[in-house]
Amino acid sequence: MSYSVTFTPDNVTITVKEGTDLLTAATKAGISIKSTCGGEGTCGRCRVKVVKGNTNNSTKNYGNLSEELRNAGFVLACKTFVEDNLVIEVPAESRLDEHQVLLDKKNSGLLKESDLDLLKDYPLNPICRKYYLELDPPTLNENTSDFERLQANLQKKYNLSNLTIDLMELQELADNLRSGGWKVTVTIVNCGDKNEVVRVEPGYSKNPCYGLAVDIGTTTVVVSLVDTEKGCSIDRMGSYNKQARYGDDVIARMIYASDHGVKELQSAVIDTINDLINKILRKNRLKPEDIAVMTTAGNTTMAHLFLGLDPKYIRLEPYIPTASKFPIVKAGHLGLNINHNAPVYSFPAIASYVGGDIVSGSLSVGINNKEELTLLIDIGTNGEIVFGNKDWLISCACSAGPAFEGGGISCGTRAMKGAIERVQIDPDTLQVKVSTIGREKAIGICGSGLIDCISEMHKAGIIDRSGQFIKVDAPSIRETSSDKELVVVTTDKSAIEKDIVITENDVKNLIRSKGAVFAGVRSLLKTMQMELEMIDKILIAGGFGNYLNVAKAIQIGLLPDLPLEKFEFVGNTSLKGAELALLSKEALRKVDDIGKMMTYLELSAGNLFMDEFMSAIFLPHTDLSLFPSLAE
Amino acid sequence: MSYSVTFTPDNVTITVKEGTDLLTAATKAGISIKSTCGGEGTCGRCRVKVVKGNTNNSTKNYGNLSEELRNAGFVLACKTFVEDNLVIEVPAESRLDEHQVLLDKKNSGLLKESDLDLLKDYPLNPICRKYYLELDPPTLNENTSDFERLQANLQKKYNLSNLTIDLMELQELADNLRSGGWKVTVTIVNCGDKNEVVRVEPGYSKNPCYGLAVDIGTTTVVVSLVDTEKGCSIDRMGSYNKQARYGDDVIARMIYASDHGVKELQSAVIDTINDLINKILRKNRLKPEDIAVMTTAGNTTMAHLFLGLDPKYIRLEPYIPTASKFPIVKAGHLGLNINHNAPVYSFPAIASYVGGDIVSGSLSVGINNKEELTLLIDIGTNGEIVFGNKDWLISCACSAGPAFEGGGISCGTRAMKGAIERVQIDPDTLQVKVSTIGREKAIGICGSGLIDCISEMHKAGIIDRSGQFIKVDAPSIRETSSDKELVVVTTDKSAIEKDIVITENDVKNLIRSKGAVFAGVRSLLKTMQMELEMIDKILIAGGFGNYLNVAKAIQIGLLPDLPLEKFEFVGNTSLKGAELALLSKEALRKVDDIGKMMTYLELSAGNLFMDEFMSAIFLPHTDLSLFPSLAE
Repeated sequence: MSYSVTFTPDNVTITVKEGTDLLTAATKAGISIKSTCGGEGTCGRCRVKVVKGNTNNSTKNYGNLSEELRNAGFVLACKTFVEDNLVIEVPAESRLDEHQVLLDKKNSGLLKESDLDLLKDYPLNPICRKYYLELDPPTLNENTSDFERLQANLQKKYNLSNLTIDLMELQELADNLRSGGWKVTVTIVNCGDKNEVVRVEPGYSKNPCYGLAVDIGTTTVVVSLVDTEKGCSIDRMGSYNKQARYGDDVIARMIYASDHGVKELQSAVIDTINDLINKILRKNRLKPEDIAVMTTAGNTTMAHLFLGLDPKYIRLEPYIPTASKFPIVKAGHLGLNINHNAPVYSFPAIASYVGGDIVSGSLSVGINNKEELTLLIDIGTNGEIVFGNKDWLISCACSAGPAFEGGGISCGTRAMKGAIERVQIDPDTLQVKVSTIGREKAIGICGSGLIDCISEMHKAGIIDRSGQFIKVDAPSIRETSSDKELVVVTTDKSAIEKDIVITENDVKNLIRSKGAVFAGVRSLLKTMQMELEMIDKILIAGGFGNYLNVAKAIQIGLLPDLPLEKFEFVGNTSLKGAELALLSKEALRKVDDIGKMMTYLELSAGNLFMDEFMSAIFLPHTDLSLFPSLAE
Repeated sequence: MSYSVTFTPDNVTITVKEGTDLLTAATKAGISIKSTCGGEGTCGRCRVKVVKGNTNNSTKNYGNLSEELRNAGFVLACKTFVEDNLVIEVPAESRLDEHQVLLDKKNSGLLKESDLDLLKDYPLNPICRKYYLELDPPTLNENTSDFERLQANLQKKYNLSNLTIDLMELQELADNLRSGGWKVTVTIVNCGDKNEVVRVEPGYSKNPCYGLAVDIGTTTVVVSLVDTEKGCSIDRMGSYNKQARYGDDVIARMIYASDHGVKELQSAVIDTINDLINKILRKNRLKPEDIAVMTTAGNTTMAHLFLGLDPKYIRLEPYIPTASKFPIVKAGHLGLNINHNAPVYSFPAIASYVGGDIVSGSLSVGINNKEELTLLIDIGTNGEIVFGNKDWLISCACSAGPAFEGGGISCGTRAMKGAIERVQIDPDTLQVKVSTIGREKAIGICGSGLIDCISEMHKAGIIDRSGQFIKVDAPSIRETSSDKELVVVTTDKSAIEKDIVITENDVKNLIRSKGAVFAGVRSLLKTMQMELEMIDKILIAGGFGNYLNVAKAIQIGLLPDLPLEKFEFVGNTSLKGAELALLSKEALRKVDDIGKMMTYLELSAGNLFMDEFMSAIFLPHTDLSLFPSLAE
């Protein structure tokens, strides 16, 4: 038996089989719904409102939905099944809104993101170029084959050797050469020791040679359209990774892959990238064939899922990925909507939890070329740290978890419109003032707002150093059956038809996250027998970094207590490294060097990290001598 | 409107749309019917008998079918269309009987085929091997990725570097390593500077490492299953190239490809190879995954069609192939039913009409290693010739045409059961005696029978030196409205319900073919300013060669008049070269050297060949001094 399901306000109607869950139905209708727990019925993010028709809720799983919401018709999409023709309303806060990823937002009153000069250390020598050739037509006496003729001319005119060509392109070669009267524009991508002919256009083509750099984040995917010859990014677009439907962090995704296979997750990220490609092509009036090469950077799990490699052994001790260097694959083979011959390069990983995104980030900030001792912290979902300079590099991953991206926090959200990014608490009245991104009605609290919350709650004496609520005698603070919570925004001012709160449990989650990052930094330094003061420069990377208030981050003990001038926001370094790899063969060649010179410190081996972590899960730390500026 | 068509005696019934021609219907029913002209309605080979039902013959094209046959219900399958439920009988002589290709038939009273010692000049050093490894399981402290672990062990234990792996195999790697408890058998194919991991089997596998050598002939496809480690072919199978449905020679196929695209022809040859693969796998109890590499040799057009490259510019002056060196392609990409990761290597071509089959043949006979001046003649459909020794090689193609394979000859046939292979004519009575392959009822005359015919007809004074009938006063000779003909087998003794004849036109066709081969040989020698006597060795290759009577071939002027001991039959050298390439990296590396050292003489440039040809279209030649032994 099949039924129709109409989703509002989109007004999209689809037909599904009886028993289909609403989360799957929504995905089928092209509507992306949040699902932090991967459809387990525990996170409550996927709630939707049944406007018309009867649903099957026989599992009686309503997650953390309040009685009130349930009475108003709200259900969990993942645990509600179709048994009637339905009209379902998907509220704003349940949506993965792909248009609202904030890119490179310059200075929102906080430390401004640096414009990295990517080609500072490397010459512009792109891995992809177009070459124009006028060939002598063959004769009875000079009758070498078409491909050998092309080879000889590229060798003679441009000193290009070791030419390879994909069978599909070779199949078109004869006609392409002749229809242009033996004049052709050849697009060639350098793949190490080979030069791959990706495209042969008849005649002279004035169009630039385009590449696409892609940052495959656990949460966000960003693409950058690069004119490789002019050496610049000409457009960027971002959206949420559709894999979010299967869980918020890499662990949830790996579990899903273990249970259901890797194909769904691979399709989800390929879909995400293809949607971005189609948009950026349309906007820039380009055709898929025009994109001749792609570089991608992502953490090890993202790289595995992108290539369809099962990440299950990454999750299990001793945490082994299938590969750390990945084969170059043709775009057509992965179903990517660019030139089907385009080589797709994936940045190599250092280890299971220090991936290509960190290698790419290290490349883009040039940490491997610097004299000064530099610490690069990428506070994404996982929290990776690199420390060193041109002589040595050490890295680790500190399992910070998705708290600073809003994951696992009652009213957490990613940095999108309506997210609370700043919070102030009056120490006397305990009244809360907030500001949201885009000045929209509040939908939740994003990372920078959460840092503010912890810092302000501590300053106002609401919580103690361990995160426990010690002051509860205020209208904005209340105790529920399960927890204590501070109301940050009341229902009437919120966009989600309920109070936006931060609970004691949330606070403890956040303290664990910040503690993990700080413990990771300390562990790296201790392993190198160095002190915090010896760090010359701290680079903060990640989508998170755009909104980070460094002073408050130090106050809660997330970042080390060093002079503000030592900090620099470097934005999405993973994407920038992928762009750089398109622009400079020399830079791309450095990638392997970075991989080779970077030592990986496995924090789960030994007690070093655990000891540091136990000391760091206080505000700011058990050892206050590490935070001298806070004593003032 | 659809109708059922039943083919007898196969008793296969299919349903086709109204207007479908019977040739297409038969192909759909899995019945291969001859079609020398490619469905143009001119060759008359596709005749079938309408047993029941009405057919649409509105084109009134009955080709060369006699009144009698037409009255008996015979029609041309290619020009007869379905408009009723039908029962169609497909007679034996119209079938491409795939089971009857004769392979390596040793000594049928003629010069015996030589067993080539393929590894005489090269060490056994196969391009494909299996390696057994016992890996140390990863630990927290030794946590390199799976592929890097495999790489390091292959390097350490077997000194193998530059390892590559296809994404599909990489996707299985993690589970394969673990399910064998970190013991694995790895199949690796050497592809020049790369070592490709084709298969990873959990645990120890005692099975040999198999490769498949394939000779893709215009007429016949032969596969050889090779145990690469033991260095031997363990089974061979052959069948007709299903492309024959689109025409007998490369020119007809190229025309078809120009008109209809290359896909049908590519599918036909892939189908042919897959049928053989499936049979050889079944017989030897192997699975597709067990075949880890394939080498193929074919003429330039066959290589193009196999890879889906359009051969149309090969046919047009100045005769340019798309490529002469071909990319190594994965078997899965071509739809071949062996290990989908298996690299498929195609022998490079020298020129449009001297292909990889000749390069492979040259490699297998070691012409490039010999001191003595050797002439290699491959009398297939095209007639390629190589001349030289270790210091130099020159080659040409003489467009001999398919006459000696039975193509374009009224009652010609390929060398299969029922083919007339020997003919004797009593000089007094002009009575004809024949013997057939397998002593079956005669279905037509194959190459060796045709040579006998010409030689005996000339000796008996039926034809003059130009091939013209001069004696017609015998019961076995008659004049029809269009031609004069010798009846070789009468209807009552033939299997095809009509007389088997050889016409004046056939004789002239054969004289042109033999003249082309001889003129090719002379042109090569003249270009090198050498005389026939300077040839130390003549190697005859090709399916044809199995049945060649050297003495009679000299009598008609097909082969030069040299002592019989200078001749050697070397059989299918194209296949043997493909086998050798599997067995020795050193041999495979020589292939490029052969390509580089071989000069191609384009016979259509200048007048040399045409002058020689004009002198050679007599029996045996205008210049009798070239055939001193015949004067005796």
